[in-house]
Amino acid sequence: MLPFSCDYMQGAHPKILERFVETNLVPQPGYGEDEYCASAKEKIRAACGCPEAQIFFLNGGTQSNKVVIDSLCRSYEGVICALTGHINAHESGAIEATGRKCLALPQKEGKLEAQTVRKYLTAFYADGTCEHMVFPGMVYISHPTEYGTLYSKAELTALSEVCKEYDIPLFMDGARLGYGLMSRQTDVTLEDVARLCDVFYIGGTKVGALCGEAVVFTKNNMPPHFLTLVKRQGALSAKGRLLGVQFDTLFTDNLYFDISRHAIDMAEKLKEIFAAKGYKFFMDSHTNQQFVVLENEKLEILQKQAYCSIWEPWDEHHTVVRFCTSWATTPQDIEALDALI
Amino acid sequence: MLPFSCDYMQGAHPKILERFVETNLVPQPGYGEDEYCASAKEKIRAACGCPEAQIFFLNGGTQSNKVVIDSLCRSYEGVICALTGHINAHESGAIEATGRKCLALPQKEGKLEAQTVRKYLTAFYADGTCEHMVFPGMVYISHPTEYGTLYSKAELTALSEVCKEYDIPLFMDGARLGYGLMSRQTDVTLEDVARLCDVFYIGGTKVGALCGEAVVFTKNNMPPHFLTLVKRQGALSAKGRLLGVQFDTLFTDNLYFDISRHAIDMAEKLKEIFAAKGYKFFMDSHTNQQFVVLENEKLEILQKQAYCSIWEPWDEHHTVVRFCTSWATTPQDIEALDALI
Amino acid sequence: MLPFSCDYMQGAHPKILERFVETNLVPQPGYGEDEYCASAKEKIRAACGCPEAQIFFLNGGTQSNKVVIDSLCRSYEGVICALTGHINAHESGAIEATGRKCLALPQKEGKLEAQTVRKYLTAFYADGTCEHMVFPGMVYISHPTEYGTLYSKAELTALSEVCKEYDIPLFMDGARLGYGLMSRQTDVTLEDVARLCDVFYIGGTKVGALCGEAVVFTKNNMPPHFLTLVKRQGALSAKGRLLGVQFDTLFTDNLYFDISRHAIDMAEKLKEIFAAKGYKFFMDSHTNQQFVVLENEKLEILQKQAYCSIWEPWDEHHTVVRFCTSWATTPQDIEALDALI
Amino acid sequence: MLPFSCDYMQGAHPKILERFVETNLVPQPGYGEDEYCASAKEKIRAACGCPEAQIFFLNGGTQSNKVVIDSLCRSYEGVICALTGHINAHESGAIEATGRKCLALPQKEGKLEAQTVRKYLTAFYADGTCEHMVFPGMVYISHPTEYGTLYSKAELTALSEVCKEYDIPLFMDGARLGYGLMSRQTDVTLEDVARLCDVFYIGGTKVGALCGEAVVFTKNNMPPHFLTLVKRQGALSAKGRLLGVQFDTLFTDNLYFDISRHAIDMAEKLKEIFAAKGYKFFMDSHTNQQFVVLENEKLEILQKQAYCSIWEPWDEHHTVVRFCTSWATTPQDIEALDALI
Repeated sequence: MLPFSCDYMQGAHPKILERFVETNLVPQPGYGEDEYCASAKEKIRAACGCPEAQIFFLNGGTQSNKVVIDSLCRSYEGVICALTGHINAHESGAIEATGRKCLALPQKEGKLEAQTVRKYLTAFYADGTCEHMVFPGMVYISHPTEYGTLYSKAELTALSEVCKEYDIPLFMDGARLGYGLMSRQTDVTLEDVARLCDVFYIGGTKVGALCGEAVVFTKNNMPPHFLTLVKRQGALSAKGRLLGVQFDTLFTDNLYFDISRHAIDMAEKLKEIFAAKGYKFFMDSHTNQQFVVLENEKLEILQKQAYCSIWEPWDEHHTVVRFCTSWATTPQDIEALDALI
Repeated sequence: MLPFSCDYMQGAHPKILERFVETNLVPQPGYGEDEYCASAKEKIRAACGCPEAQIFFLNGGTQSNKVVIDSLCRSYEGVICALTGHINAHESGAIEATGRKCLALPQKEGKLEAQTVRKYLTAFYADGTCEHMVFPGMVYISHPTEYGTLYSKAELTALSEVCKEYDIPLFMDGARLGYGLMSRQTDVTLEDVARLCDVFYIGGTKVGALCGEAVVFTKNNMPPHFLTLVKRQGALSAKGRLLGVQFDTLFTDNLYFDISRHAIDMAEKLKEIFAAKGYKFFMDSHTNQQFVVLENEKLEILQKQAYCSIWEPWDEHHTVVRFCTSWATTPQDIEALDALI
Repeated sequence: MLPFSCDYMQGAHPKILERFVETNLVPQPGYGEDEYCASAKEKIRAACGCPEAQIFFLNGGTQSNKVVIDSLCRSYEGVICALTGHINAHESGAIEATGRKCLALPQKEGKLEAQTVRKYLTAFYADGTCEHMVFPGMVYISHPTEYGTLYSKAELTALSEVCKEYDIPLFMDGARLGYGLMSRQTDVTLEDVARLCDVFYIGGTKVGALCGEAVVFTKNNMPPHFLTLVKRQGALSAKGRLLGVQFDTLFTDNLYFDISRHAIDMAEKLKEIFAAKGYKFFMDSHTNQQFVVLENEKLEILQKQAYCSIWEPWDEHHTVVRFCTSWATTPQDIEALDALI
Repeated sequence: MLPFSCDYMQGAHPKILERFVETNLVPQPGYGEDEYCASAKEKIRAACGCPEAQIFFLNGGTQSNKVVIDSLCRSYEGVICALTGHINAHESGAIEATGRKCLALPQKEGKLEAQTVRKYLTAFYADGTCEHMVFPGMVYISHPTEYGTLYSKAELTALSEVCKEYDIPLFMDGARLGYGLMSRQTDVTLEDVARLCDVFYIGGTKVGALCGEAVVFTKNNMPPHFLTLVKRQGALSAKGRLLGVQFDTLFTDNLYFDISRHAIDMAEKLKEIFAAKGYKFFMDSHTNQQFVVLENEKLEILQKQAYCSIWEPWDEHHTVVRFCTSWATTPQDIEALDALI
């Protein structure tokens, strides 16, 4: 079966496994106090151009969203997000489980526009009954979005400015951040992200690691007793080395960026083979997620030999299907797919 | 530095790392639907002698406690535990974060006695105001306990009977279960645990894995939509294979039990070297945690060359110090320690 | 100042105060076990034509919404509502504070349409990833809605049918139920409400009481240990008589309906005086809330002599203003208003 | 039936009912913005000798405890209390429902001693693993306690000092505060309470009101957006006048203190009649709750003509029974009781 249904179908980049083997028996303290975490943090700070960044490694995306939102929002505050934002749509109510409301606003290709946010905030504070509502306490965006789209530097800057104006943090869910940063159509760098966001995370689970997200607080704004807040959410790893070793490896010799670029190359290749055969795309994506409109019979046949994700019906006879590449996708995978479509 | 402060100072058993390498590029679906999880579950069911067991792999102990208690207790119910129980004492309020109260009762060497539980339950239901209290909805025990002690089969049976009588589940935190099962002083088998408990988990993090606990529902009592409940707690792994591969390896060729027995052998050795030099033990433990009374000056010197855990003051001049062995402890580690004390 | 900004500007119906005086020194047990609660429940059961109804008196609307939703939804379930539903828009996140998500759907004049709900439910269960979402566990409607509009019997029946089909309860927020039932344009009776809804409440705070809502479970579906669930939410009154006496009075000699009808008469009168002077209405309402479009200068002058509620801007020069009547509105109030506009 | 089982068996002081009647039709804004609340707050500030006090009226005791603790504790903090504290023992887990742990410590006659608290705090911060525990974020005491006992000024001062030392607020549950202040054996005044506590409430429900507690923040420390926090807990009254009128009346012409003193006089009388017949007291109480040891047969007979509360078994043949007086107890009630015992 060809691995195109998502970007977490395979294990970890081989260099990570090698590093596990090398470090395996070195005794280290637990709970993130190990030397691999320390080294990984140093390298991430450098990569972000943000020497004062405070970093904490967590296991997965929903967990990171939950912990960050729970720890930065006050109890009477909710989190502004796109209706299609992962926290609003696909996290089983993990945010609400912490007592916080998702203040979901209309989106455009998965993106939240600064003007939408500003309009909302203006109206909120103009409303004489706002004390009876949920205060907007944060803006959450995903980059790339759930549709594989990307914010431009101008768009991110505009969002950042609205947030500053209203004194609420801008939080970026970067579960697929590498694939965004290495897109051929982006003008946003990791330094930009660190500069414009108050907190974000660098996704590992979908970008070469077995698990793990590096949560980065960029403005000396990690909440006090953050370890306790993490543990309270059941999110603290006893063997912090599991995350430290992985991120230390990913941020050594540019690995995170190289493998992300590879996935983008594979995605562009994938676009070409579909385009060459006249398939329509649901959305113009420049990251590792591609949305193709397939005839239903074709899809049925294809699914016998390739993993892919049914996104939504297109019309009676067609379906929007998501194909993902990842650090692990090979040119041979693409060729084999080409032969099937 | 010698690795005695806890049982999670080193990586994973080498066979697990090998298996990561072997399986690394095989595409698998996410969220625990992979073949390694399936295989691991089958092997655990067999090891438990419980073919109908329902199993879910989670990342860590606090997370497992949180998810199990949240999913099995009703909102008006709390969980009976020992005052020294991990959920009551050392989980940063993770249980309360789900809205549940720890109904903490007196313990004896870390153990909750059936008669203590029965007395509590009898008094609770005899109290005319019990509708104004938190209903007891579960009994939580850890085995081995936080003090390294073990329940006998008779004690477990008695607890199980009280629970049945009051129709509440018995939940065993088995973060160190392997070390309990392989103790030279236990009459409790894994089959017994599966038979007597309604839900328990087999600890991986402290017993040979990089992370992971196998939660076992033994009575066809896994709550509906458990995956959703897990995700809502931020506890669902996208790459379920990370957990599947580890438990599949641990439950192949008796590995889990063999490495647990090894840790016990090392612990007995460790006891011998301390006893030989006339040290006093704080508590008679037959598992991998040993509590030794050290002079404070001795301790200070020792800490320069060995990791160990300060437990509590003994008197003005002495401290109770915890030494842990694990699957990774070597006879050389023990010899080196012997030279230091 | 004329009292038109809301329907809770004045105290209680005088008969309630009289009854407080009469019963004041009669000793009664607490927590709703008093004879007035018992009598009120009996009368409400009769008025609903629902002898098996289970009734619990709570203090206010948000509290009732919170308690009902928290006690009937499972933790992985959310509550379907209109985007403009009170629980979604104006309760400070009280529902999310219990860990439940408001699944907010588009509305029409404040109403949730059965077809909107069915479409949502169908799509939800057709989605292969629905285990990663919040399960729809209840449908919440307000009647009258936040815009003063009313469901017809056919609309309620259709909603009830969708709910039955998907086996989820239909919950009606009846904070202003009296004013809905006595509208000149409704075909819905209290018996219909009791028959078609699984749970609803009869609003007292806005309909003649100092405080209090009567929560009615119509299908023998009051959750076990409901008193405990109520107390856990801080919603249990020690002096249950405060609520019992009020509802017992309101449901004696048709008082609840008579005073509601009076408010409707006053509202129709209010409409007439505005219509007579050529004012435009924002929405065609047949209950006690009327939404009038006023010139901004007019509004400014008016606000010096009458309480009224600014709803939203209409255009640069006009504002939508809400005028409420209540059981306490007098013909003199209306005449005085007429003189001001 | 004679009304001795609790202090909330009868309605409100007649002056409150009169005031309801007088003010009934005066239009007032909702949510505590009415003039009665304003006036009541002014009078309470004066009575407390604390002109900067910030006051909010809530409906009941558990609700007040829940709202205060939820709004003042950070999410990683719990609340220190006596094992017998109301929040720990008799509030159905209302505190845990907000995600906060009750850090229950041993008590002495229902009281928490300053040295117990200091010892706990010292040990907590000395524990190297305290980041894995629940941080102590507040000290909760009830005055009078659940056993009718009272803190002396010295004891309160000592508690206040420990709290200051550790920079955590001291919170007093004053559900029965009037009966404490008017005890013949107290040296604590309302001014003392306001000076020594950071937040406390003046109980109305048990001291002459139909419902209501006046929460007093004494150090300019009412959390921002407190109204929103209150509403989020379902605790905001639309008709704030219900609470305003009651407290305004209670704090006019010393009424709160006079009726409290009356209850104390009745309690002393009640003690006398039991003592005169040789009954034993379970505890030496100087407030309105008296705990008497009765023979079981006597109790059975008595319960046919008097409401009283079974507290706990004394021995096989005797039971500890609680008798409460209140503002409403009459000398005739006491005489009638005397005739029964």
